[in-house]
Amino acid sequence: MLDLYHAEPAANSLKSLIAIKEKGVPFNSHFVNLHQFEQHEPWFVKVNPNGQVPALVHDGKVITESTVINEYLDDSFEGPPLRPADPYWRARMRIWTKFVDEYFCPALSFIAWHHMIHNITDKLTPEEFEAKVARIPLKEQQDKWRTAARQGYTKEQLDNWGRQVRTSIERMEKQLGETAWLAGDQFSLADVSCFAMASGMPRMSPALVNPKDTPNFMRWHGRMESRPGVQAALAMPNPVRDTLEASRSKMSSALSS
Amino acid sequence: MLDLYHAEPAANSLKSLIAIKEKGVPFNSHFVNLHQFEQHEPWFVKVNPNGQVPALVHDGKVITESTVINEYLDDSFEGPPLRPADPYWRARMRIWTKFVDEYFCPALSFIAWHHMIHNITDKLTPEEFEAKVARIPLKEQQDKWRTAARQGYTKEQLDNWGRQVRTSIERMEKQLGETAWLAGDQFSLADVSCFAMASGMPRMSPALVNPKDTPNFMRWHGRMESRPGVQAALAMPNPVRDTLEASRSKMSSALSS
Repeated sequence: MLDLYHAEPAANSLKSLIAIKEKGVPFNSHFVNLHQFEQHEPWFVKVNPNGQVPALVHDGKVITESTVINEYLDDSFEGPPLRPADPYWRARMRIWTKFVDEYFCPALSFIAWHHMIHNITDKLTPEEFEAKVARIPLKEQQDKWRTAARQGYTKEQLDNWGRQVRTSIERMEKQLGETAWLAGDQFSLADVSCFAMASGMPRMSPALVNPKDTPNFMRWHGRMESRPGVQAALAMPNPVRDTLEASRSKMSSALSS
Repeated sequence: MLDLYHAEPAANSLKSLIAIKEKGVPFNSHFVNLHQFEQHEPWFVKVNPNGQVPALVHDGKVITESTVINEYLDDSFEGPPLRPADPYWRARMRIWTKFVDEYFCPALSFIAWHHMIHNITDKLTPEEFEAKVARIPLKEQQDKWRTAARQGYTKEQLDNWGRQVRTSIERMEKQLGETAWLAGDQFSLADVSCFAMASGMPRMSPALVNPKDTPNFMRWHGRMESRPGVQAALAMPNPVRDTLEASRSKMSSALSS
């Protein structure tokens, strides 16, 4: 029995959806609606006490953290390997997945949060909002929600995260000029992690990501989009698409400035 | 040929020193003196363009990031396994190493930095300091140095990092009440990562870490200290011991408050 709890196919949920689809492992999909705060509902906090998606449940054992889930899938199941066999390139792969978790993803996430939270919270009274926030298990996440919804982030913070996103794209562009995939000559979890963050960028941020300035990135992005596993992950249900699209157009101008 | 560039046996350098000693792999040790900014010297930036230790060079290939280095050592060499064979516990191990990298280590590092930087920088004129900072490859590290050396961090920031350190210890204490080691019944890289951060705590922060409040932690700490690999790592040369000791006593009061 394999159950994956995930949100729409974007960011960290997309990361594990791609891995599980590329691996070809059958699983039960459980959609958790972040726009309705379902990740903080008591039933889900029983699955993951941190109140975060994705979460994998395998024969009753819970595995959290998308990057850890992806290595677990490769450690546990038959199917195409998602990691280079060579230890050096495997290390290079892990430097990428770590970079995404510690640098690229947080920068994108704060920017997205800044532009998206009001779509989610403006329907709530201040009391309703505080009740939602009080349920969040992690203090750091509570702080993030309160700051974003109340005063918002400063221009200096947003500029810094925008710079980090550009640095991330530059770093990918450079590597993809040297090797076909991010961790050498083989598709790996490095590509999965980066694509999960950057999948929407050619459409959302054409000033940043385009055939003229980032040709290597664009070729790689095309090859990623043509993979059946990636297509299957992107085709997972997305009931919050409209809200995401509205936020993405706001993010687009933020990233281009 | 295996070369490890590392600083004194503390934090991330200790993390890789323990792994390499536990694995029993012969290597050439290269001490990089962080108190003399050697990690930003051109010769070292040629080894690791990020200007950070530890860095491993194996047959001419460079591997960076202590957590990645440690998995690489286990992927590449014979010797006692440093990771659980069971995929579930291996995933649990990775959740710990990730938690250390993203939460426990940054919190400790900012506090240490706050209390240590003046021991290092007060001998420099502002011009000399700025020249040192201008060589740092990563902008985030430049910002950290400038902020710490000039205005310092705010009480709110320091309090928050202190809370995160306490949360990290509580999380370890809880796990070590359930299993002998952090990732199950076997010593692993989870223990290496956590010990690299917490090795000095019983002495430095007895109000936080002691036999009465954290008995499981203390028993584990004792078992860690009795391992020959850990002892060999802690016995590596430490020419900056006096400066560290002076900073640790300042950190001690910060963590106990």
